[in-house]
Amino acid sequence: MTISIRSSTVSVAGFRFAGSRAGIKKSGAPDLALAVSDGAVAAGGVFTTNLVQAAPVIVAAERVRKGIARAVIANSGCANACTGEEGLEATRATTAALARAIGAADAEVLPASTGVIGALLPARKIVDAVPALVAELSADGADRFAEAILTTDRGPKVAHARGQIDGRSFVVLGMAKGAGMIHPSMAPHATMLSFLFTDAVAGGAALTRALGRVADATFNQASVDGDTSTNDTLIALASGRAATAPGAKGELHGAVEEACLGVCEELARKMVADGEGAEHMVEVRVSGVATDEGARQIARTIATSPLVKTALFGKDPNWGRLLSAAGRAGVPFDPSCARISIGDVAIVDKGRAVGEAREVEARAIMASPSYGIDLVLGDGPGRARYLMCDLGMGYVRCNAGYRS
Amino acid sequence: MTISIRSSTVSVAGFRFAGSRAGIKKSGAPDLALAVSDGAVAAGGVFTTNLVQAAPVIVAAERVRKGIARAVIANSGCANACTGEEGLEATRATTAALARAIGAADAEVLPASTGVIGALLPARKIVDAVPALVAELSADGADRFAEAILTTDRGPKVAHARGQIDGRSFVVLGMAKGAGMIHPSMAPHATMLSFLFTDAVAGGAALTRALGRVADATFNQASVDGDTSTNDTLIALASGRAATAPGAKGELHGAVEEACLGVCEELARKMVADGEGAEHMVEVRVSGVATDEGARQIARTIATSPLVKTALFGKDPNWGRLLSAAGRAGVPFDPSCARISIGDVAIVDKGRAVGEAREVEARAIMASPSYGIDLVLGDGPGRARYLMCDLGMGYVRCNAGYRS
Repeated sequence: MTISIRSSTVSVAGFRFAGSRAGIKKSGAPDLALAVSDGAVAAGGVFTTNLVQAAPVIVAAERVRKGIARAVIANSGCANACTGEEGLEATRATTAALARAIGAADAEVLPASTGVIGALLPARKIVDAVPALVAELSADGADRFAEAILTTDRGPKVAHARGQIDGRSFVVLGMAKGAGMIHPSMAPHATMLSFLFTDAVAGGAALTRALGRVADATFNQASVDGDTSTNDTLIALASGRAATAPGAKGELHGAVEEACLGVCEELARKMVADGEGAEHMVEVRVSGVATDEGARQIARTIATSPLVKTALFGKDPNWGRLLSAAGRAGVPFDPSCARISIGDVAIVDKGRAVGEAREVEARAIMASPSYGIDLVLGDGPGRARYLMCDLGMGYVRCNAGYRS
Repeated sequence: MTISIRSSTVSVAGFRFAGSRAGIKKSGAPDLALAVSDGAVAAGGVFTTNLVQAAPVIVAAERVRKGIARAVIANSGCANACTGEEGLEATRATTAALARAIGAADAEVLPASTGVIGALLPARKIVDAVPALVAELSADGADRFAEAILTTDRGPKVAHARGQIDGRSFVVLGMAKGAGMIHPSMAPHATMLSFLFTDAVAGGAALTRALGRVADATFNQASVDGDTSTNDTLIALASGRAATAPGAKGELHGAVEEACLGVCEELARKMVADGEGAEHMVEVRVSGVATDEGARQIARTIATSPLVKTALFGKDPNWGRLLSAAGRAGVPFDPSCARISIGDVAIVDKGRAVGEAREVEARAIMASPSYGIDLVLGDGPGRARYLMCDLGMGYVRCNAGYRS
């Protein structure tokens, strides 16, 4: 089974896309995205585990349980979170307008929002923009969709995978946004706004279960700032137009899940690399402790340590901060056995510095936009990884004046 | 019982202090501090819970268990953490030199270190500096002690309390350092480097138990960056020279514990206010959830949220970030009941914004160096508070180039 991943959009049989300006963002940038299927299709989704859930999350999570959908309408510029009953009404007004325009049932439209928390969704602006948006729908409109969901992102995040099942080709297209408030924790597990569209055959419930596993292996191991959003959403729609064989026992076919995993891994990496103000995307790999769970706890603690993150910004192979963060994760290991490498340069062996020369080599690696850090903390079987980024002036600049 | 707290040093019967330059810091700033008692006195201490413990922590924690000590020797400029057996030998060499110089037993000298992790303590420099340092000891040398333990601090952190027991006066002097890697978690619970000296009567074991409670109520509810150090240390020495009545049942007298609590609260506030690059010290108070523990978990999550911290830096009453951070703390509450105030200005009621005018008032409060934020999340009895600071350009500047 060969799955190839590409960092671009592609058309997906059965879906049309559009993106436009509804005036939600003060900047006038694109802020309304639409994806519509030719008929009702299988749908799955996983959402934020934050106790505070935005109105669109509440609505989409309820609707996706039926396992079918016709459309996704997503806006940037306003999260519609912490907006109470009024927020729910605003979200429902926009999905109702879209449902009328495309001849679908209300419950077949899945909403998503991202932007400032606490501001009410300007439903009127969206309702007014719907007719023109629907008129612009096209099979090759995915790039406009991807553009319209961005907030503080430096650019769109798209990827697609092609796979085959018994000689039949299928495609999975993924589009995501996310630069800040990124520390997804979705349940079954979910992320930022990420949307998958495939022409493979799938059932709605099987899609949701597969998305849970995929999110857990990708977005839920990625962190920009440790802050889990109120709006994290991962939705997948499957048109079945590729007429691929279904999976066994009511589950998603393994090849399709693998393609979804590949696309989401690519999107997660793009998100972290585009962390607010970030200059480096780093994969921290922890191994040698007793359990995978323990390793993940250590990787997460390192990934969210401000001292580690500022050291990465400063291109400083400050292994003492790495080891200190590992030591406060609450997971047992013997520090005197620790080995730490940056890229392929070992800087710590048996818990002690290898030497200045190695740190100079490590500094050179830390200048690159993407590299790995390995911590081997013993000879236990537990292992995990986390995608993280540095914390620099750009992050502060971006977030100290976010609402103004 | 009236305990008065002052932000200055004071002489404490039975103790002499000194501080000098041993050449550990490249800058040539003071880096070696010494406190010596006239004879063996009661001693207690609590230390970091980080799995990675610096050599001086290992040595001091072992020695303090005996409950008596003669001296504290503390250096800045080098943490002597992650330095293995060699590090332990270096620490022991310095305490042995001091023990010889003052005619004490090795085990009566308590070491403490702070500075860069991973560098070996330059024991030779300290041993060479000991004779002159001992010669400089004086009853009014506390300010020089306080100066010599600083690293990235903007200035010394000192406080003292005066109290009375049955007409007998006693004093508690506290000196601390700490600006970064501040998120103490000490066990029985301990902090950054903090030293208390009192002339009250106390037993060593009772002191340690009291310090555990005091640290839990002060330093362990304070965070600069969420990173718990490898070197956190809170040590107290009691000369008994004030001849105050001992506490009941082998415990520290309540008045002395109250004085220690007052001094540590003052030191904790100074530490957070002097958080690396910080411009605002904020006390976050959470109430209305089911348990104190739950309230503390929420307060801690807010206190360590990069998005909340950058909003404080930007003087932005971004309550959505406060509520979102509370929502991901894993503690149940009803967001639609939330009330949030900044200073005495209510900006959120029943989970919704009160209005623009209030946020303008809140912005004005957020310009001050110190203020409080209250989150009332229901009508449960659980309550807690956390001392936190903002995260701004100064923090990044300080930590991106820390070792260079």
